[in-house]
Amino acid sequence: MSDRLTADDKEQLRRFGQRIAELRGQKGWSQERLALESGLARSYVGGIERGQRNLALINILRLARALAASPADLFAHCEA
Amino acid sequence: MSDRLTADDKEQLRRFGQRIAELRGQKGWSQERLALESGLARSYVGGIERGQRNLALINILRLARALAASPADLFAHCEA
Repeated sequence: MSDRLTADDKEQLRRFGQRIAELRGQKGWSQERLALESGLARSYVGGIERGQRNLALINILRLARALAASPADLFAHCEA
Repeated sequence: MSDRLTADDKEQLRRFGQRIAELRGQKGWSQERLALESGLARSYVGGIERGQRNLALINILRLARALAASPADLFAHCEA
C-alpha cells in the first residue's frame, strides 16, 4: 500500500484541518487551549490545522471530545 | 502527548473495527475484496477489524470511499 499521499489526500487533510480551526474558533479557543483540552502538543495542533498531519483515529476522537463535537462533524468538509 | 492507548482508546478502536466489518458484510465482501477496493493490505484490514490498528485519517477516508460510506458512518459506534 503506497504511503505516499496523493494530491487529493493532501486536499482532504487541508479540509480536515480547516474544520478543526473552524470548530476551535467557534469556541473562541487558541491552539494552546485546544492542545491542553485534547492532550495533543500545541505544535501538532498547528500542523493539523495547516493540513500537514495525517493524524490517527484516536487523536481524531480526542479532538472531537475536546471540541464537544461528533467525530462526524470533524469530517464535515471531507469527501470520502 | 502520551502515545499509550487507554482502555477507552482500545474500546473505540474495537468499535471502529466492528463498524468496518459490518459495512463490509453488508456489501458481501471478503476482507481481500475490501483490501483491493481500498488499496490497503489485507492483513491491515484484518487488524483494523479486530480493533488492533490506530489507523490514520487518509486510510479512514480510503475505507469510506471503498465502502461508499460517509466518513461519519464509519464512526457510528464510536463516541467522542
